[in-house]
Amino acid sequence: MPVPAANLYPDFNTIRLSHVCLNVKDLAASKTFYTEILGLQITDEDDTRVYLRAMEERGHHCIILQASDQPGTVEVMGFKTFDEDDLDRAKAYFEARGRPTEWVERPYQGKTLLTSDNMGIPLEFYHKMDRLEPIHQKYALYRGVKPLRIDHFNVFSSDVDASVAFYSDFGFRVTEYTEDEESKKLWAAWMHRKGGVHDMAFTNGTGPRMHHVAFWVPTPLNIIDLLDLMATSGFVKNIERGPGRHGISNAFFLYALDPDGHRIEIYCSDYQTVDPDLEPIKWDLKDPQRQTLWGAPAPESWFKHGTTFSGVETKDSQMKATPIVAP
Amino acid sequence: MPVPAANLYPDFNTIRLSHVCLNVKDLAASKTFYTEILGLQITDEDDTRVYLRAMEERGHHCIILQASDQPGTVEVMGFKTFDEDDLDRAKAYFEARGRPTEWVERPYQGKTLLTSDNMGIPLEFYHKMDRLEPIHQKYALYRGVKPLRIDHFNVFSSDVDASVAFYSDFGFRVTEYTEDEESKKLWAAWMHRKGGVHDMAFTNGTGPRMHHVAFWVPTPLNIIDLLDLMATSGFVKNIERGPGRHGISNAFFLYALDPDGHRIEIYCSDYQTVDPDLEPIKWDLKDPQRQTLWGAPAPESWFKHGTTFSGVETKDSQMKATPIVAP
Amino acid sequence: MPVPAANLYPDFNTIRLSHVCLNVKDLAASKTFYTEILGLQITDEDDTRVYLRAMEERGHHCIILQASDQPGTVEVMGFKTFDEDDLDRAKAYFEARGRPTEWVERPYQGKTLLTSDNMGIPLEFYHKMDRLEPIHQKYALYRGVKPLRIDHFNVFSSDVDASVAFYSDFGFRVTEYTEDEESKKLWAAWMHRKGGVHDMAFTNGTGPRMHHVAFWVPTPLNIIDLLDLMATSGFVKNIERGPGRHGISNAFFLYALDPDGHRIEIYCSDYQTVDPDLEPIKWDLKDPQRQTLWGAPAPESWFKHGTTFSGVETKDSQMKATPIVAP
Amino acid sequence: MPVPAANLYPDFNTIRLSHVCLNVKDLAASKTFYTEILGLQITDEDDTRVYLRAMEERGHHCIILQASDQPGTVEVMGFKTFDEDDLDRAKAYFEARGRPTEWVERPYQGKTLLTSDNMGIPLEFYHKMDRLEPIHQKYALYRGVKPLRIDHFNVFSSDVDASVAFYSDFGFRVTEYTEDEESKKLWAAWMHRKGGVHDMAFTNGTGPRMHHVAFWVPTPLNIIDLLDLMATSGFVKNIERGPGRHGISNAFFLYALDPDGHRIEIYCSDYQTVDPDLEPIKWDLKDPQRQTLWGAPAPESWFKHGTTFSGVETKDSQMKATPIVAP
Repeated sequence: MPVPAANLYPDFNTIRLSHVCLNVKDLAASKTFYTEILGLQITDEDDTRVYLRAMEERGHHCIILQASDQPGTVEVMGFKTFDEDDLDRAKAYFEARGRPTEWVERPYQGKTLLTSDNMGIPLEFYHKMDRLEPIHQKYALYRGVKPLRIDHFNVFSSDVDASVAFYSDFGFRVTEYTEDEESKKLWAAWMHRKGGVHDMAFTNGTGPRMHHVAFWVPTPLNIIDLLDLMATSGFVKNIERGPGRHGISNAFFLYALDPDGHRIEIYCSDYQTVDPDLEPIKWDLKDPQRQTLWGAPAPESWFKHGTTFSGVETKDSQMKATPIVAP
Repeated sequence: MPVPAANLYPDFNTIRLSHVCLNVKDLAASKTFYTEILGLQITDEDDTRVYLRAMEERGHHCIILQASDQPGTVEVMGFKTFDEDDLDRAKAYFEARGRPTEWVERPYQGKTLLTSDNMGIPLEFYHKMDRLEPIHQKYALYRGVKPLRIDHFNVFSSDVDASVAFYSDFGFRVTEYTEDEESKKLWAAWMHRKGGVHDMAFTNGTGPRMHHVAFWVPTPLNIIDLLDLMATSGFVKNIERGPGRHGISNAFFLYALDPDGHRIEIYCSDYQTVDPDLEPIKWDLKDPQRQTLWGAPAPESWFKHGTTFSGVETKDSQMKATPIVAP
Repeated sequence: MPVPAANLYPDFNTIRLSHVCLNVKDLAASKTFYTEILGLQITDEDDTRVYLRAMEERGHHCIILQASDQPGTVEVMGFKTFDEDDLDRAKAYFEARGRPTEWVERPYQGKTLLTSDNMGIPLEFYHKMDRLEPIHQKYALYRGVKPLRIDHFNVFSSDVDASVAFYSDFGFRVTEYTEDEESKKLWAAWMHRKGGVHDMAFTNGTGPRMHHVAFWVPTPLNIIDLLDLMATSGFVKNIERGPGRHGISNAFFLYALDPDGHRIEIYCSDYQTVDPDLEPIKWDLKDPQRQTLWGAPAPESWFKHGTTFSGVETKDSQMKATPIVAP
Repeated sequence: MPVPAANLYPDFNTIRLSHVCLNVKDLAASKTFYTEILGLQITDEDDTRVYLRAMEERGHHCIILQASDQPGTVEVMGFKTFDEDDLDRAKAYFEARGRPTEWVERPYQGKTLLTSDNMGIPLEFYHKMDRLEPIHQKYALYRGVKPLRIDHFNVFSSDVDASVAFYSDFGFRVTEYTEDEESKKLWAAWMHRKGGVHDMAFTNGTGPRMHHVAFWVPTPLNIIDLLDLMATSGFVKNIERGPGRHGISNAFFLYALDPDGHRIEIYCSDYQTVDPDLEPIKWDLKDPQRQTLWGAPAPESWFKHGTTFSGVETKDSQMKATPIVAP
């Protein structure tokens, strides 16, 4: 039985994924991609950073684009806690597991704990972030794919079993997973805190590297609009995979690469997972419909390409490469 | 300031609304409406009851249709708790507030607490319900409006301030509300546990009565399909209001009446509310766009008609009737 | 039998409706409405006129906004003929019926015949109009409701039988009609040349007046987007009726009023009518579903308000007012 | 200049494509596919044939499934003429071009001319077909992909220039085409009569063979519903290509194979082409976006597989195979 039971009463309460800071080469080019094409809203910007939020978000930022001499790397992934005291409990928790911890200053955020997970992924936890006026009913502002909110992270892990065990301990719950029937090892797993299919997913591969960060949109038609827009605005080569429906999560998806190669998923149609007794759905690694319900294989790049975390070394997985089989 | 702060650390943990039992006159007629038109799936039935679930639900039932000599009344509204111990804590909690409590036997549910709220609405809390196989990817089963899950209840209350205070105490949080600017009293409020706009809403009027129970569907096009189907299958008179978009909650909605006059809302497009510091959105009672963002007034029946709770007396509200104003 | 057989071999070949010239008070305000809200593209403009086309059109204009001291009137309705010789044949045809004819100069159009129909509606026929580059795949240009093409005109006529007879003679074919069962007179009729439900429709009332001009859009979701945009951009009062589905034509519709009170229909979902032996569909005047399949009644303004043709006197209908009956 | 001017005044008037007769191995299996999956309606059936129509069609059939010892072949493609006299004129026309002609008896059709085109494709022309009651507003009948009407044929031709010249002579007009920039020969062409992008298209390859027959559906979401249904009802292997948007025609498409390998396109979003002076749009054979606007390459089978016409020999094309280039 490869999926550990989640800790239903974790030491601290993580509400949801919150934001990611991406290192980019050309801030202007990235800004165009994230605002004109994806349709995110700028909440602040200066010479080195652009802060963005999606249409239904009231927190200050879900993406920070940061000009960097290490473009194409990820700086940090952010999570929001239920209250301020959770931060101290989180600090004690990670320290007890031998992880480095540090209080850091972050613009627009209150007290913020910087730490890292068992694989070295830089994580930051905060409770307070500047709150902004609602804009979800300012329909004249909607552009691009009309992104409503950041939805989840997906990362390559060189040992998915270890990653899942680590996150289960502080309350992440598995909703779906892929198992290698022979080795009984996990190939991939989707874990949540906020009541959807995932806040964080792990997939087997050289890691840790970010596979993608995903945004939720209202309907599949918004994704089709995005494809039409990208295809006729100079971004056709940034379209990597889709549209399609994943067997896993039942998501209608599109994957695109930003100008630095950070992969973005646009996504709708997941389901509610708030029941603590929700049974994880198991998929066989050999079932091609787990990847695409409709059968079309993913391109090789989708299995191989990811963006590293700034300053974090990667390690190859001991599991052999995924069998890419058409149904 | 009419909205009380929610109790973020309630005595017991309610996960979400779960189900409702509706008393009906003609079980066969109701079954046709809920399966052929709405598209719910039968999970069990006998001579007196039909149990139904929506497409992404794994719990045994979200609607129980019960043949009754009091058709057009609501038997009970059900809620799921986080764990089994929450039930004992809930019992103590309601008893301390002078509410009747009782352990009851319910088919397909584990230990179940029957109690009632401050207005007398019969509530039942349980943790365990029979779990069924996933059917959300069995697309050949989808029919009617393709309902994915039960979403919320909405009830008339003769004193919305009192209702909101009562539910706030055990952890329901207000997301949006309408205030009468003169009296500073609440006209209506939307409260949640599961991270959407609401599990339970209250609106001013003779109460307690159920205003509606709502189902979540994937896109506005499913609602348009339902309208076409109802209009050409003998159910055109059951269409009461819509389609439209509420200002409040931003929901794309349709209201229909079942054969006994129970009002059903079909609904999509709400937003994520898991942040404990999410600011409630305030609407002025005089703003007609709170009702319909696009301006069309609701029919008078929508403000007046509701279905009573079996055996529960109603009381008129002291607030004067809503000003129905076109924008 | 109220519907005359269409002349399948008319004296001249009208391909389709083409454009309309609307007189407006404030050219800037109208331009904002037609470009920012409806999403039409400007093809030329000067101090007195703005020329617009929809996204899949290659002819220079489908709407001309003309600053005028008679705002809220319609200048002329335009039609395209199959070839240049059709224009001479049309001239002879209208003269033989006692209608005034005149060759007029129109910017961006070739030889243009100005005449009028039996009720006095100013009509112009042309074959050549400046052709522009395709823009239907320039998705970055799409805005507002994403209008694809002008679809039809609808006018009030004081004698619908006479109007239908007049247009049938030069080849317009009836697709659907409403008959008053008692008097056996036509209440309304939909007539086409181009193979859809209509290029021109007539409805009983004080006439001639334009009831509306309609634009075709891809899906109902574009109409929902338009409603959201209008409702939150200062145009909520311009929304008159909808969204809904007509029984007649099966169209998914929205009606809005421009700043001068010209009524615009946004519309999708009609059907192909190229078969010359297509049987017209008859509706009973007493059937409320002919107006709205879903049953919601139209507002009174929809039956009463129209915009006159510049300089053309109107006449009341002898038929009594429509019974507005909810289903 | 590879596209010949269409004959705007052809000897006889073809209104539109009408129907196709497909030879199949297992009538029951084919019937399941065309009714349960595609959603066509049976209008008659016996031991050897099933007649089907789409939801907005009033003619008796658009598809005839015929049990045959030559399954996977196409029996004949049918076209409707404007009037009965066109049939005699068509007979004279094809005879003058050395084509065989014959009056044949067809159930549910009036006088029917059987002939063949320059490549040997069996064509039949008729004017009268049994007319059925409208069902487009009987929404309870809609199933599968909710097909509204047959839209077009697409065939492999060993000499596209010759095929286009042949059809241009009797009035088919080119809307879009692909040219080999080096040889200045046509690679593919889309030709219409009814005012859409095509009734008949030709693509270079061993021919004549049917590439596909296409059905029009309301929106892209119906195609997504079909994919979900096929993928979870045992037809995942019948999904060949898509969903996607063609550069050419701008169609949102899906290609599926029926149980005998006949290729079916499901399609929406073309544009109106009734203007006789509509300029054909030229695509370069080397532009990969002509195939898929979004860049995904078509599978090899899509370029190679077709179904032959019963008893008609095929011939290889002299043009080299298409360069399958990802953008």
